[in-house]
Amino acid sequence: MTTAEDFRKFGKEMIDYLADYMENIADRKVVSEVTPGYLRPLMAENVPNEPANYKEVMEDLEKLIMPGITHWQHPNFHAYFSAGRGYPSILADLVSASFGCNGFSWAASPAYTELEMQMVDWTAKLINLPDQFLLSHEGPGGGVLQGTASESCLVVLLAARNEYQKRTGDEVNNFSRLVGYTSEYAHSSVDRAGLLAGVTIRHLDTDENFALNGETLKIAIAKDKKAGLIPCFCCATLGTTTSVAFDHLDEIGKVCNEEDVWLHVDAAYAGAAFACEEYVHLMKGVERVDSFVLNLHKLLLVGFDCAALWLKDSRRLTDEFNVNPVYLSHENKTTIPDYRHWQIPLGKRFRALKVWFTLRLYGVSGVQTHIRQHVHLAKVFEKLARENCSIEIVAPVILGLVCFRMLGTDEENELLLKNILKEGKIHLVPSRLNGRFMFRFAICDGNREEDIVYGYNIIKEQVSKLKNKSEIEKK
Amino acid sequence: MTTAEDFRKFGKEMIDYLADYMENIADRKVVSEVTPGYLRPLMAENVPNEPANYKEVMEDLEKLIMPGITHWQHPNFHAYFSAGRGYPSILADLVSASFGCNGFSWAASPAYTELEMQMVDWTAKLINLPDQFLLSHEGPGGGVLQGTASESCLVVLLAARNEYQKRTGDEVNNFSRLVGYTSEYAHSSVDRAGLLAGVTIRHLDTDENFALNGETLKIAIAKDKKAGLIPCFCCATLGTTTSVAFDHLDEIGKVCNEEDVWLHVDAAYAGAAFACEEYVHLMKGVERVDSFVLNLHKLLLVGFDCAALWLKDSRRLTDEFNVNPVYLSHENKTTIPDYRHWQIPLGKRFRALKVWFTLRLYGVSGVQTHIRQHVHLAKVFEKLARENCSIEIVAPVILGLVCFRMLGTDEENELLLKNILKEGKIHLVPSRLNGRFMFRFAICDGNREEDIVYGYNIIKEQVSKLKNKSEIEKK
Repeated sequence: MTTAEDFRKFGKEMIDYLADYMENIADRKVVSEVTPGYLRPLMAENVPNEPANYKEVMEDLEKLIMPGITHWQHPNFHAYFSAGRGYPSILADLVSASFGCNGFSWAASPAYTELEMQMVDWTAKLINLPDQFLLSHEGPGGGVLQGTASESCLVVLLAARNEYQKRTGDEVNNFSRLVGYTSEYAHSSVDRAGLLAGVTIRHLDTDENFALNGETLKIAIAKDKKAGLIPCFCCATLGTTTSVAFDHLDEIGKVCNEEDVWLHVDAAYAGAAFACEEYVHLMKGVERVDSFVLNLHKLLLVGFDCAALWLKDSRRLTDEFNVNPVYLSHENKTTIPDYRHWQIPLGKRFRALKVWFTLRLYGVSGVQTHIRQHVHLAKVFEKLARENCSIEIVAPVILGLVCFRMLGTDEENELLLKNILKEGKIHLVPSRLNGRFMFRFAICDGNREEDIVYGYNIIKEQVSKLKNKSEIEKK
Repeated sequence: MTTAEDFRKFGKEMIDYLADYMENIADRKVVSEVTPGYLRPLMAENVPNEPANYKEVMEDLEKLIMPGITHWQHPNFHAYFSAGRGYPSILADLVSASFGCNGFSWAASPAYTELEMQMVDWTAKLINLPDQFLLSHEGPGGGVLQGTASESCLVVLLAARNEYQKRTGDEVNNFSRLVGYTSEYAHSSVDRAGLLAGVTIRHLDTDENFALNGETLKIAIAKDKKAGLIPCFCCATLGTTTSVAFDHLDEIGKVCNEEDVWLHVDAAYAGAAFACEEYVHLMKGVERVDSFVLNLHKLLLVGFDCAALWLKDSRRLTDEFNVNPVYLSHENKTTIPDYRHWQIPLGKRFRALKVWFTLRLYGVSGVQTHIRQHVHLAKVFEKLARENCSIEIVAPVILGLVCFRMLGTDEENELLLKNILKEGKIHLVPSRLNGRFMFRFAICDGNREEDIVYGYNIIKEQVSKLKNKSEIEKK
């Protein structure tokens, strides 16, 4: 396996193996059935001294690894959020891996930087972001590809922290007076970013739709300012992980602009939907935002990981991230963004290539069809569930997620989950809204309409069983 | 391009295209000749509405992207450090992309976590790290796969910062009294980590071989303690980027252990060489180290990005990275590590798969042969250069890098570089040692012995031309 000739032969065998996997994925159990620690006893304790041959490794892939895979592209997978994995993205990753470059500067491989510039602009226009976020627009705005929304949140919080710290008059590296805000339903990565950046993050209460409004933020900021603290950051969520709730961005933006607080938008999942005009109103007020992140590896058919982060003024990031040694410098830094000052690692993968393959081979129309299909399938599930008098829908169904619970106690619902997962025919995960246990039924890329009906019927049967049992017990 | 059948057909065509690329890479110019901004005028301004077909995208790959690629696997590429890109790694990445999973927890896809556990242990044993860094060893040590050494440095500095801040008695998020140390030749990512973590980093002087010793560190720590500061972190480098110098780890480790300072080792490039027993002495004292990072994407044939980070006590990391106060107690390592508390992003790619494919298909013997070949080629270049009375070797040649300069001024050497790059037959980059301009001639994966001789001859001719010109001018 060390020559191009081997690669040609075994590469094609691998393509066949993977095409077979995709075509027959429904024959596999959706959730892995291994128990923790399954793998170690099956493997050698050390790297073997002599090379294996390709056939042995392929056999071990099926024997050792496949049993430990939970198949996110399985028709009966409804857990977490959809993971993008279009065929164009897979082939682009194959090309990137074959280049074996590291595009850490323009000079290191110009296409890495330049295609990334084009792809963040393409994606910004695709989702109808204002021109202020475009590299091709005059002004200091622009985008960059990062790994994940969690990493991106840290990146912007670090930049905001350093910038605002300078205004405190406190000693360098003393961030004790800085405060950030987010909703109680924000992703855990906002807390994590606060922990790592060294900035206190406050969780604010939400309204009846689990969304943060401007008034709540305004009161929190006033209170902190009165206490001598310095509000520096707010993360609003468009499409929360728990229930795809949309914070009131327009109100929040006004407060942040008035109070001079960096406003970041986490649209990790839902941002893709703004490619369809019927959802654009959900980001009303986005022109007031300082930074905005979208995970292309969720609804946009691009493989994990790939997040686009846009800034209204990219200098606020690069000014705080730039350390510039001789061996990295090149001649053209004023005309082209030097992306190593926009991110945490020095190195850069060719993520832009999988975005390009995906957007070219689907087109706007293909992307829109894909997103609308997700919403359609969620509505199919919602309709079925609403007809069932033992089930309640506990949050508005806006995109590809339905939040529901069985009428009854948390304990009964936990038992329901246990029974569903034990049966192993579908996969879904729970969460909590208003402190109450509930189910997240996520539409994922592998799902077709018949899979939604199948999934609903599995749930319905398990609900009936529990209800019957409890009726019998009451008698 | 949206069905498995399409993937089967076009995937095989892509394998052929890439095998052709690899076999004929020498026919391409090693360094891209595009000028900044080349790409935008060649592309549509927006995502096209209708899907392209696969052939169009393939044609555009060759027409738009290839001219902007600097070919790191080209036989005449001697810049930066070698980028690993073995065929096994490429095929493993193809598998990972096809799974389309996100292994952010054990349950999300157990094989992601369990294979990673095995691979960090395998790699630790391969490079002869002490047992204290193994997950399979009793005790709290163990490893994790990260993206890069730069990210890993930030991760451990953040953990050290939070742990030591608690001892200061200062307010939460006030890090102003914390200090870290590294050598003047440490990678820029250490400075960057200091900037992002909010910890002052001091650059310490090195000895005649560009290596940091224990005494220098000891004096710096004493001075800071006297000033009321709190030394918390030291990054020693085994194999610097500039000249592959090895800090005196044994001495530094004693000082750090005595002074209770977190000692991190950046062995990003050179760590792989410890797979060969003749280099193990260069990490003498490694048992005193708290954390250690190696980039598998440099000398270990694994595609970018893939860094292994090991900790002597992983709880020191997870305690500081875990946002959930319920679980803030020490993790029980006898079960399974929850890797999301070991890294910055929440999500996890299946990097372990490409490590497994690579180590299986090369074996220890294949890896050793590969590393020794790099060193052999560096010695070939060194020998040729030492025979040339116009060239001096300016740093010890230990692994696959030769640092040299033409006898003469910095200006003359800068002109030499300009002439070499203008000719465009080989690619190499400059740096500075002792403040003086010099060349880094790096051995890279695509190089064979004849390419080294060819590269040397290109340099020799350009040196002669400059020397002749300056002789004529003198007369």
